[in-house]
Amino acid sequence: MSVPDRDELAAWLRLVETPGIGRDSARKLLAAFGPPQAVFEHPPDAWREVVPPAQAAALARPREDLAALVESTWQWLAADAHRHVLTLGDPAYPRLLLETTDPPLLLYAAGRLELLQAPSIAVVGSRHATAQGLENARAFAAHLSRGGLTVVSGLAAGIDGAAHEGALEGAGSTIAVVGTGLDRVYPKRHAPLAARIAAEGLLLSEYPLGMPPLAGNFPRRNRIISGLALGTLVVEAALQSGSLITARLALEQGREVFAIPGSIHAPQSRGCHALIKQGAKLVESAQDILEELHLPAASASPPPDAAPESPAAEAGDPVLAALGHDPATLDALVARTGWPAAQLNARLLELELEGRVARLPGQLFQRVDRG
Amino acid sequence: MSVPDRDELAAWLRLVETPGIGRDSARKLLAAFGPPQAVFEHPPDAWREVVPPAQAAALARPREDLAALVESTWQWLAADAHRHVLTLGDPAYPRLLLETTDPPLLLYAAGRLELLQAPSIAVVGSRHATAQGLENARAFAAHLSRGGLTVVSGLAAGIDGAAHEGALEGAGSTIAVVGTGLDRVYPKRHAPLAARIAAEGLLLSEYPLGMPPLAGNFPRRNRIISGLALGTLVVEAALQSGSLITARLALEQGREVFAIPGSIHAPQSRGCHALIKQGAKLVESAQDILEELHLPAASASPPPDAAPESPAAEAGDPVLAALGHDPATLDALVARTGWPAAQLNARLLELELEGRVARLPGQLFQRVDRG
Repeated sequence: MSVPDRDELAAWLRLVETPGIGRDSARKLLAAFGPPQAVFEHPPDAWREVVPPAQAAALARPREDLAALVESTWQWLAADAHRHVLTLGDPAYPRLLLETTDPPLLLYAAGRLELLQAPSIAVVGSRHATAQGLENARAFAAHLSRGGLTVVSGLAAGIDGAAHEGALEGAGSTIAVVGTGLDRVYPKRHAPLAARIAAEGLLLSEYPLGMPPLAGNFPRRNRIISGLALGTLVVEAALQSGSLITARLALEQGREVFAIPGSIHAPQSRGCHALIKQGAKLVESAQDILEELHLPAASASPPPDAAPESPAAEAGDPVLAALGHDPATLDALVARTGWPAAQLNARLLELELEGRVARLPGQLFQRVDRG
Repeated sequence: MSVPDRDELAAWLRLVETPGIGRDSARKLLAAFGPPQAVFEHPPDAWREVVPPAQAAALARPREDLAALVESTWQWLAADAHRHVLTLGDPAYPRLLLETTDPPLLLYAAGRLELLQAPSIAVVGSRHATAQGLENARAFAAHLSRGGLTVVSGLAAGIDGAAHEGALEGAGSTIAVVGTGLDRVYPKRHAPLAARIAAEGLLLSEYPLGMPPLAGNFPRRNRIISGLALGTLVVEAALQSGSLITARLALEQGREVFAIPGSIHAPQSRGCHALIKQGAKLVESAQDILEELHLPAASASPPPDAAPESPAAEAGDPVLAALGHDPATLDALVARTGWPAAQLNARLLELELEGRVARLPGQLFQRVDRG
């Protein structure tokens, strides 16, 4: 279901990758003349009826590396049957994305193309997440994926990566919308995750092969994440973070926004709280989201928010009981437990090694509850 | 501003404390015949036009201990000038409570009666709070009180107690609405706190002297907590807790409901999250509440019966003028007014008794603005 022939690909790349031609102008040309090959059958004079003279002049001079880009893209497509370049008119082009105001003209995809038509949910959040935030992202994504929703995220460090990993556990699988060409992986340490997503899920990008991880790409990429999905879940986010941009885009696209609350003392929850104040739906469990989207409950396995540790187990550990669910300083814990600091420190280290407590910046400790 | 004479008190107690006479029936009788003394000047036949025969019969046979209750109540009032029994028609009866559908017929008060006319906020929550919850309750209440709001709560263990303690730090002070007679304290370990509230704030009850802490009293008492206040803040609450009853009552009374979010893994946050899902406002700081209530704009319109003295008289008071709007030490006020310390102290005491100045910890004085 890719672009059918090399000439068509060359015409699309010439239209989309000519410097100075924005998506708006490209759409105007397509609307006026038909597919890119038809656009280029017209003389520059005709283009000037539709776009400014400078853009028409740019279109008349294809970039020097266009032939090389066409060749490398064609080779990339040929190397794997699961690689595709989708155009706006392709039946495989995701329907929900098409309904947005600024759909990408070309989409590069690697993996299970049918996921683009599955009901999906975006799960995004901070790159600098807390241990509990990562666990929540993984657990919510796993539950949503088991509930049949494809989880869309951005392959970033932190919440994104945890969401992809959780989603790979369920039938819904996952789509990673990246801000680079599909022949690159950013961040590099997510190369194994990207390979797994290409095999079991789907990698997606609007950027041509070779595109490096330029900072400006990522906010623009976010409209694709929200645009693919019925709704966007923000797991943890600071104020003024990329995740809030994605949430804002989701609202503009008329999609649902969900946010997980947290301690009012946790900076990583500020963004979620801001969203809830602005009307996002507070969710405590993946089930909340499935219900809100009127989807049937996931049948398998317990919900990720089910209290994992029995009150008895918790009662059995005075340090966990004293920690509660908010970040606490060592001093606060000394006061709450009455333990000597040295003994408390030793126990905290044990709990940390067991993954039941996380050490946060600023000498804060936080409990980690597992789904 | 109490019930003016003993006969009137006796008639009120006979009406309100006759077993089988509910508040609805009592209100019907008052509407039909006028004040209780007038009610009892009519024969039982007349009462039967208004209430069922069994109730009319009950009214004709006052309870055997009525005289003793009148006597003990009269003695209780006489023992301290800061004790009051307010009836529905009393100018000191709290205006916002009067606007609710089921205002108490009698209110027993001990302390600074003027707090009943101050703009106030209810701060409630779990008896089984987390350490962070207690600290949040204390900090929010202190901030709100310093912002000029009187903090209303229920004197219970946990969040309530912490809210009262925090509120006593600010000029707004605190009102404890209890579920017992004012000659009792429940829980017993809050006896010192209750004494401090009677001295610096206000204790309030609709129950007669001697009323023990019956379980049924407390949910009923909650309508007074929410009814006195512009809004109700729930700090921490489990699902199906008394705090959620108070929040529901606040909504029914057309008041704001605020809730503090927390970890989705904390049972003590479930109630707050449920409220936010139902439309309560998520708050991260006391400032959020002050802004939501449009304060100080809200305190700019003086409630009826607020200050006995005109704004002009207040503006003309050199001590109030010297105080400004920040806490000040006695030394600073001596310097600003040029008054001898003894004279200044005497005037500050007068202003304090009038509720126009609050004495803060650390020998600080602060103006209480209601205009």
